Amino acid sequence: MDTAALWKRYQDWLYYHEGLGIYVDISRMSFDDEFAQQLAPKFEKAFKDLDELEGGAIANPDEGRMVGHYWLRAPELAPSEELKKNVTETLKAVESFAQKVRSGEVKPPGEDRFTDVLSVGIGGSALGPQFVSKALASATPDIDIHFIDNTDPTGIDHTFEEIGDRIKSTLVLVISKSGGTPETRNGMVEAKAAFEAAGLDFAKYAVAVTGEGSKLDKAAKSEGWVSTFPMYDWIGGRTSELSAVGLLPAALQGVDIRAMLAGAKEMDEATRVHDVRKNPAALLSLAWYFAGNGQGEKDMVVLPYKDSLLLFSRYLQQLVMESLGKENDLDGNTVYQGIAVYGNKGSTDQHAYVQQLREGVPNFFATLIEVLKDREGDSVEVEPGVTSGDYLSGLLQGTRRALSENNRDSITITVPDVTPKMVGALIALYERAVSLYASLVNINAYHQPGVEAGKKAAADVLDVQNRVRKVLSEAGVALSIQEIADKMDAVDKVENIYKIVRHLNANNRGLKIEGNVNEPDKLKVVAS
Amino acid sequence: MDTAALWKRYQDWLYYHEGLGIYVDISRMSFDDEFAQQLAPKFEKAFKDLDELEGGAIANPDEGRMVGHYWLRAPELAPSEELKKNVTETLKAVESFAQKVRSGEVKPPGEDRFTDVLSVGIGGSALGPQFVSKALASATPDIDIHFIDNTDPTGIDHTFEEIGDRIKSTLVLVISKSGGTPETRNGMVEAKAAFEAAGLDFAKYAVAVTGEGSKLDKAAKSEGWVSTFPMYDWIGGRTSELSAVGLLPAALQGVDIRAMLAGAKEMDEATRVHDVRKNPAALLSLAWYFAGNGQGEKDMVVLPYKDSLLLFSRYLQQLVMESLGKENDLDGNTVYQGIAVYGNKGSTDQHAYVQQLREGVPNFFATLIEVLKDREGDSVEVEPGVTSGDYLSGLLQGTRRALSENNRDSITITVPDVTPKMVGALIALYERAVSLYASLVNINAYHQPGVEAGKKAAADVLDVQNRVRKVLSEAGVALSIQEIADKMDAVDKVENIYKIVRHLNANNRGLKIEGNVNEPDKLKVVAS
Repeated sequence: MDTAALWKRYQDWLYYHEGLGIYVDISRMSFDDEFAQQLAPKFEKAFKDLDELEGGAIANPDEGRMVGHYWLRAPELAPSEELKKNVTETLKAVESFAQKVRSGEVKPPGEDRFTDVLSVGIGGSALGPQFVSKALASATPDIDIHFIDNTDPTGIDHTFEEIGDRIKSTLVLVISKSGGTPETRNGMVEAKAAFEAAGLDFAKYAVAVTGEGSKLDKAAKSEGWVSTFPMYDWIGGRTSELSAVGLLPAALQGVDIRAMLAGAKEMDEATRVHDVRKNPAALLSLAWYFAGNGQGEKDMVVLPYKDSLLLFSRYLQQLVMESLGKENDLDGNTVYQGIAVYGNKGSTDQHAYVQQLREGVPNFFATLIEVLKDREGDSVEVEPGVTSGDYLSGLLQGTRRALSENNRDSITITVPDVTPKMVGALIALYERAVSLYASLVNINAYHQPGVEAGKKAAADVLDVQNRVRKVLSEAGVALSIQEIADKMDAVDKVENIYKIVRHLNANNRGLKIEGNVNEPDKLKVVAS
Repeated sequence: MDTAALWKRYQDWLYYHEGLGIYVDISRMSFDDEFAQQLAPKFEKAFKDLDELEGGAIANPDEGRMVGHYWLRAPELAPSEELKKNVTETLKAVESFAQKVRSGEVKPPGEDRFTDVLSVGIGGSALGPQFVSKALASATPDIDIHFIDNTDPTGIDHTFEEIGDRIKSTLVLVISKSGGTPETRNGMVEAKAAFEAAGLDFAKYAVAVTGEGSKLDKAAKSEGWVSTFPMYDWIGGRTSELSAVGLLPAALQGVDIRAMLAGAKEMDEATRVHDVRKNPAALLSLAWYFAGNGQGEKDMVVLPYKDSLLLFSRYLQQLVMESLGKENDLDGNTVYQGIAVYGNKGSTDQHAYVQQLREGVPNFFATLIEVLKDREGDSVEVEPGVTSGDYLSGLLQGTRRALSENNRDSITITVPDVTPKMVGALIALYERAVSLYASLVNINAYHQPGVEAGKKAAADVLDVQNRVRKVLSEAGVALSIQEIADKMDAVDKVENIYKIVRHLNANNRGLKIEGNVNEPDKLKVVAS
């Protein structure tokens, strides 16, 4: 296609949202009009599916649940008075609590105010808050935020070393919908131990965000925690950023959460339109479908050209991959769906892997995110008439062109700046694009059976560990891995047993290995 | 394969390095012995290629350069006395300078000591230092490190806001081999402006790491910077972590750089062995070749189960993708090679996308990295007899098993702990695996022609920008995008012109747009 034709195609397909100032450009995805027409019936169904979902249909059939994240920013659309009340009252409670913490009205025992927030959560209870903090929090915040988003002992220790003496003015958020996510439970137990070691009463520093009636909710209430905020079964973890899960940490950091909600609401309205060309989420899902042949054949590489959006791709990894990565479609066919997502930021990543994107294996399509505003205030010139921001813009355009010239497709999203409103709008844009794409490929975007399987496998390993320790302490003599397995009546777990033993041995946990660790078959293990 | 057969396969293929305590397990990659035998002749050639490279052959034929990163930790192997001297003297200079900065012997004007380091660099001059800092620096460092690794004005401002008043005790490292990387040059200009705005003489705070005789080297010397350290043309950016590029920031943070080098040296020795089963780098490259059919058909998902190794996958993105992502092979055939790499950390990522890995599109193989040591000191129990670290270990094993049961392949690398020695060893392991794999698929792993193309395209955009501004200021009247293009005699740049105008307009840079930005064809632009 020559330059004039490309320029025409650019204008033909360009989407612009007047109120938000957001552009979506899919002109460099190499589909033709015929392809777009072929998808029309699928889109008609997808639009209808989304209308029903927003009306309160059971959109997650496997779990018999409604899917209501769109109601968070438009409670008037929720299908019942109770749901409306849930949304509006939780929002008010979050705002009020955050204001009281920030003003010092809610404060830690013996201190003037909370100086730090420690957020304990994983997956949907961490990725949104982390993305938003990096995008919107001040470089010199009056309340600093830290995260425990794993069950890594060294990582937890590192976080508490960073907090140091300020532990006495640190508010801990424990975020878990079910209240039973092991990593979060472990983080909470470790946090409690750290507070106790500092002579502090954990309950006076702790806040729970969890489903009403969950184990965590009950513990928080019976132990007299500072506060609790509800999560609802109609909000999935990966779409919970605009519920208490994301709004509470954001508000505590001084982020304007009403503006985030307003941006999301405005984008929701734009993405409800039943016309692909006038619906930016539909355009994205069309582009994704084209790129991967409706089967995820191409990876989605996300490159925001703005440091503050660094974590957007990590946020999207969950939103897209956990929603779309499914073995079966809604009719029960085996389909192995999904789209792999990765990326950090431009132009930094150009120096990491645009070499491969431009010249190597063509197994991806790129999403370039442009931010028009360079900075607050004026810029120095790095060359006559040229600023750092001009370079950033030039590098984005240059990469888009270099990819296009080598037949690598790309989407470009342009936002005026990085504000709470824009972050809300971007979240809503991708939430809807994922919902529409799921409908196009006929899958349930709202469950995650594979995560359950991983948890179960881990619980199984821990059960084996307990049995290994019991067998060893009862035996009193050194046993081989095979002998341990035999005594446990678990010969199918022999490899697990070896690894458990190796791990316990490395941490002086009551057993010793004799022999060469390189010869698993010949090792002897003894309780110590 | 039943459990007994898997257990046998596990032991058959298990690699263990006695001195380092590192295990490499490729038993869950589903190749068979016949496949391994088929690759034997390719490996013979690859081992020979690497021997020649280490002997000083021109291993980067396109650029006529030697490839010498292996000499950094074994200068006795360098092919000339001069090269040996380069390595040993630079190492001494780095150590001596870092020691003087840390002791306060080298200090900023009017202050007792440097409190902060600001590292300005991108790509290979940032990813290694960032990975190592996250992996090894203290949570409460006596010298804190910051990075400018992009040309984003807001990002740069954010960094200086974080540094705040401590700018007066901040040592700036400007790291650029050529001295001409635009992002780094821009970061330096911005940093200089920030120091001047604070009333400080930049030269008294600045250190250059660059090729001798480069523009940056000359500027540093003529302006009397605090110090300069050399980079050599036989070290590529993505393999420069163990040169001054990586060693200087690490040493300034108090990391034991001799231990990093020792770990790399020991791993180098282990990966020189001409026997696939006894060479951990060969095992990795064998697994990669099998996974992607020697054509990068599967993505490499890297999941270290340790928070401190979070940035390892980002480091590997560059090392693997820039090295292997090539259009042509060494015989000039079009091959579109490469392997896509992504990942953050386990078990965190299990809550983001293991759903897709387990059930979705099977377009990847996983690399799980296990760290045996949980933490310094004892752990609290999160359940009777069970610690946070047991969960982390159980989740890794559970995921490996869950993937395997669904026919998703994985490699497991086990290290005893995260120390300078281990980090050096991991870097060396992957450097050699990449070199071997490149040889297996017959490509030049040591150039990056596609990066140059991107830079050129960006320079072209900036040239267009200058011409647009000239045309507008000469015209004195409002012009359409098309009219600007005509006057510039650049009708093929019309889309660039529109985007440049939109960006300049958003930043009040001497022009105004009249009309609806949504209708590019109808806009008028006027100098203001």
